Amino acid sequence: MNKNKGGFSLKLNKVRVIQYGCGNMAKSLIPYMIEKGADIVGAIDNNPDLVGQDVGDFANLGHQLGIKISNDPDQVLSSVDADIAVVTLFSFVQDNYDHFVKILEHGVNIITTSEEAFYSWSTSAQQTNELNRIAKENGVTITGSGMQDIFWSQLPLTVAAGCQRIDRIEGAVSYNVEDYGIALANAHGVGLTADEFKTQITDVESFPSYMWNSGEELVSQLGWTIKNISEVRVPVTSEQVVHSDTTGKDIPAGDAIGMSAVCTIETYQGPVLKLQTIGQVYLPGQGDLCDWHFFGEPNTNFSVAKPDTVAHTCATVTNRIPDVINAHPGFVAVDELPALRYLSYPMGYYVRNQRHRGHC
Amino acid sequence: MNKNKGGFSLKLNKVRVIQYGCGNMAKSLIPYMIEKGADIVGAIDNNPDLVGQDVGDFANLGHQLGIKISNDPDQVLSSVDADIAVVTLFSFVQDNYDHFVKILEHGVNIITTSEEAFYSWSTSAQQTNELNRIAKENGVTITGSGMQDIFWSQLPLTVAAGCQRIDRIEGAVSYNVEDYGIALANAHGVGLTADEFKTQITDVESFPSYMWNSGEELVSQLGWTIKNISEVRVPVTSEQVVHSDTTGKDIPAGDAIGMSAVCTIETYQGPVLKLQTIGQVYLPGQGDLCDWHFFGEPNTNFSVAKPDTVAHTCATVTNRIPDVINAHPGFVAVDELPALRYLSYPMGYYVRNQRHRGHC
Repeated sequence: MNKNKGGFSLKLNKVRVIQYGCGNMAKSLIPYMIEKGADIVGAIDNNPDLVGQDVGDFANLGHQLGIKISNDPDQVLSSVDADIAVVTLFSFVQDNYDHFVKILEHGVNIITTSEEAFYSWSTSAQQTNELNRIAKENGVTITGSGMQDIFWSQLPLTVAAGCQRIDRIEGAVSYNVEDYGIALANAHGVGLTADEFKTQITDVESFPSYMWNSGEELVSQLGWTIKNISEVRVPVTSEQVVHSDTTGKDIPAGDAIGMSAVCTIETYQGPVLKLQTIGQVYLPGQGDLCDWHFFGEPNTNFSVAKPDTVAHTCATVTNRIPDVINAHPGFVAVDELPALRYLSYPMGYYVRNQRHRGHC
Repeated sequence: MNKNKGGFSLKLNKVRVIQYGCGNMAKSLIPYMIEKGADIVGAIDNNPDLVGQDVGDFANLGHQLGIKISNDPDQVLSSVDADIAVVTLFSFVQDNYDHFVKILEHGVNIITTSEEAFYSWSTSAQQTNELNRIAKENGVTITGSGMQDIFWSQLPLTVAAGCQRIDRIEGAVSYNVEDYGIALANAHGVGLTADEFKTQITDVESFPSYMWNSGEELVSQLGWTIKNISEVRVPVTSEQVVHSDTTGKDIPAGDAIGMSAVCTIETYQGPVLKLQTIGQVYLPGQGDLCDWHFFGEPNTNFSVAKPDTVAHTCATVTNRIPDVINAHPGFVAVDELPALRYLSYPMGYYVRNQRHRGHC
């Protein structure tokens, strides 16, 4: 498939998807995508417990799809004709980079839940520009999407469109680190003492918090330019002992049960953004946060009550697939895509200029 | 001005506006529009207390604009060259109809806060189709906007784009009838007894509630088609005596302090919408409502806390002006316009294909 090649117009309901990374997110994503008219034509993971398993069994569909999880991405990418790969591997661009390049060089579009890839133009400038070049050379698009796309970007942007003047934006979002595995728990300092957290997390040059990247995208969408961006990371603690299933440990009172990162963005146009990303082991009754406060004319406060972050992430990625296939080639963040919409019909109906599939 | 006529491209910061209707809404709108780069080139009202007053004095700008409020719309429309008229007269299309026709026939675009005009294709089908024809014949656009545009439409649409499946939508919005004058208070049955309300409001063929129209637009945006739409209107009452400044009366406990209208929309695709519009005299501490509940995958609940409906209405209309000028000719509801955005810069910068102004 190559966007630069012509081809006759053909109305197809199906969009052919390679699921690249078969973890928890993929388990939710696969049934969502199938419900919205995708065909799963390949699945990739290097977990020996999964390799060889039928995708239908993996995703608890109740029937097999005849597609086995493979640990050989080159073989999959060379042997099937996919419209898009859904990459659910790592949070940061550098960890995904080789996989992204491989997919793009096979002429397949990418949508990824990599939080940094939602807007990595400054946090991984060199690699993002290389990916942009490689995507263009191969006539395909790479886009980051997920919870951010709607709830940390299009939602505040929409409310902004109902305001006369915005001087300051404060956003706070949270997620339960227990939902995302051991690597993420460790990156959030779960189980560290106050001193350990300071030396291992607060004081080190580190990866940006997830709202650092979505904040840069939001600023771009609002037409502002960034004067300064910085972040402070502090531990989240509890006065009670908290058990973490992910680390398998009881965390003493006062030790870190997660991290709160506050990213502050100043703009040349004046407005300031203060964006708090909280990832922690939840206490009983806690739910995800998505709270926004605009200071300006008029002051405006809005929130989503305990959003189901995993479900919204997978639904958003599913709804975004046609836009990525329709997009111009390159590394295309959502600030270059149309406002996302709910897919009422199979995703193939939203794909423009259906191309003659097949590598030629 | 005529969209069908050519002309050289000229970058202009200013958009020339006629304020058509000088009530409370106009008092907020005029400074908002000026802040965002509009020039007020005409103002129309038939209130003898206002005719002849300078628009700057009327809108408390602290300086005069040199434009006087006129009671002669033909004279204003014939003597100045305006890009758009902002019509803040009546809620319903039939009351605005003659004014709309006059403006369109002068080749001037319209944006209006008429709640019905937000989506009047079925509630005033004949007149809306006539307006569509007249607008096209004159190469200009008429669009309804206001609070609905963002908070009753684009906001739920945005959250829908983060959902996998929507089975049912429940929305509830409210406003204080004390903010909108005697005509609206009477239309909401303020001061009626239970029996009077039943015979004068509940039992009569009546105008649609405001969310009837925004609900039809929302359904259109979601790609669904309406199978049935109906509405139930009941009085809002209080156990205490409530004073209404608008009617100048104390309303006994149990009598109507306003109306709650629940519009139910069934769609051929299955999803059902239940939309509640509450207009009442507020009790101490009450604020405007904007609460949404989606039932589906996942269930999603979101709200705006006590939105400042007047300010959001005026800000939304201001932000929407470039889209109306850019739109194709006709009666163009916002389901045919791009997602609304916050204007970070003077509105002229968002106007495409600036035309050579001047009637020729």
